[in-house]
Amino acid sequence: MTTTQRDGLRPAEVEPVPLDKAYRLLNPGATTLVCSRDGDRRNVMAASWTMALDFRPAKVCVVIDRQSWTRELVEASGRFTLNLPAVPLAQATYDVGQRSGRDGVDKFALAGLQTFAGQHPASELVVGCLGWLECRVLDESAVRTRHDLVLAEVDAAWADRRAFRDAHWQITTDTPDALRSLHYVAGGHFLKLGSPIEVETRDAR
Amino acid sequence: MTTTQRDGLRPAEVEPVPLDKAYRLLNPGATTLVCSRDGDRRNVMAASWTMALDFRPAKVCVVIDRQSWTRELVEASGRFTLNLPAVPLAQATYDVGQRSGRDGVDKFALAGLQTFAGQHPASELVVGCLGWLECRVLDESAVRTRHDLVLAEVDAAWADRRAFRDAHWQITTDTPDALRSLHYVAGGHFLKLGSPIEVETRDAR
Repeated sequence: MTTTQRDGLRPAEVEPVPLDKAYRLLNPGATTLVCSRDGDRRNVMAASWTMALDFRPAKVCVVIDRQSWTRELVEASGRFTLNLPAVPLAQATYDVGQRSGRDGVDKFALAGLQTFAGQHPASELVVGCLGWLECRVLDESAVRTRHDLVLAEVDAAWADRRAFRDAHWQITTDTPDALRSLHYVAGGHFLKLGSPIEVETRDAR
Repeated sequence: MTTTQRDGLRPAEVEPVPLDKAYRLLNPGATTLVCSRDGDRRNVMAASWTMALDFRPAKVCVVIDRQSWTRELVEASGRFTLNLPAVPLAQATYDVGQRSGRDGVDKFALAGLQTFAGQHPASELVVGCLGWLECRVLDESAVRTRHDLVLAEVDAAWADRRAFRDAHWQITTDTPDALRSLHYVAGGHFLKLGSPIEVETRDAR
């Protein structure tokens, strides 16, 4: 087993994102991979029910089912990461949503996902994603218990500078699929993010 | 003032969505318009911090700032609608985010938005959107107070059948912009949803 080993160094394209701009990674609503680690145990699941919650301090929320192994690891460690997979990870994103890590499989290996280290020792960051948020669970246990809704503060954020820099997504009509985010519908059906729409930023009419 | 009048009948393309499939309207993470009405007062704001929360009963959550006029109307009426604008509403979506409805302007009129009636009398549904959710606020006041996070149950859902039918988004490479959703970044910068990615739905490797 190599589940306690991360597979590589931080890719050269990965740069820190100022925390007060971290919400912009989530604004377009892409599907995420939620990674968790508690000691030697780690897991990855797919989640489209995630969003930004606050600017400063940066906060997020995500629905993590009480029966999932991810939830068990998140409750134990008090932490998780959100990873924004690019189009080439569509199959892996689907696959990790299809079975539980509880039965002893390492879902990272199963889906061919490699990870690198974040700022926090428990953070697993997935190679081939466009943005990453390292999150610490907030003490809002009532909605966690009643609704499986996990609120968290972001204590580090990263982006692939080819896809997101100067606090903006850099997607144009020419952007290759490897730098476009995935947006989940249902079943094996995803959509990729398309091209920019600019509006006039004059004072509102 | 015509703020108590809705502007038209339900468009012919608008069909009900089964409540247990309503989450799929939100799965791809499009930007929303949040509409609220309390008696004669109504408002519309833009929100990208919204997501599905549960399947059955269908629930959603959305961040609505405590200082916004929308929040005042939502607290008073206990209701709001989520509307998913298509690309041609990008400018209007930006514009309604730029000023408050508190100063007596009707932001629907200001942005050229027309509405039609939903199932509930307080529901304002915006013409030119692709999906609509009529929502009743849940009694989760702690996170509403502390985080401006509003949890709600969906009691009716609708979609433009050209964009969403059989519980799936129908976007293809040929779909016109009028049937593509908007995904907000920041400033006047939106992205539109692109083309489908299909993955193999065999048992996960």
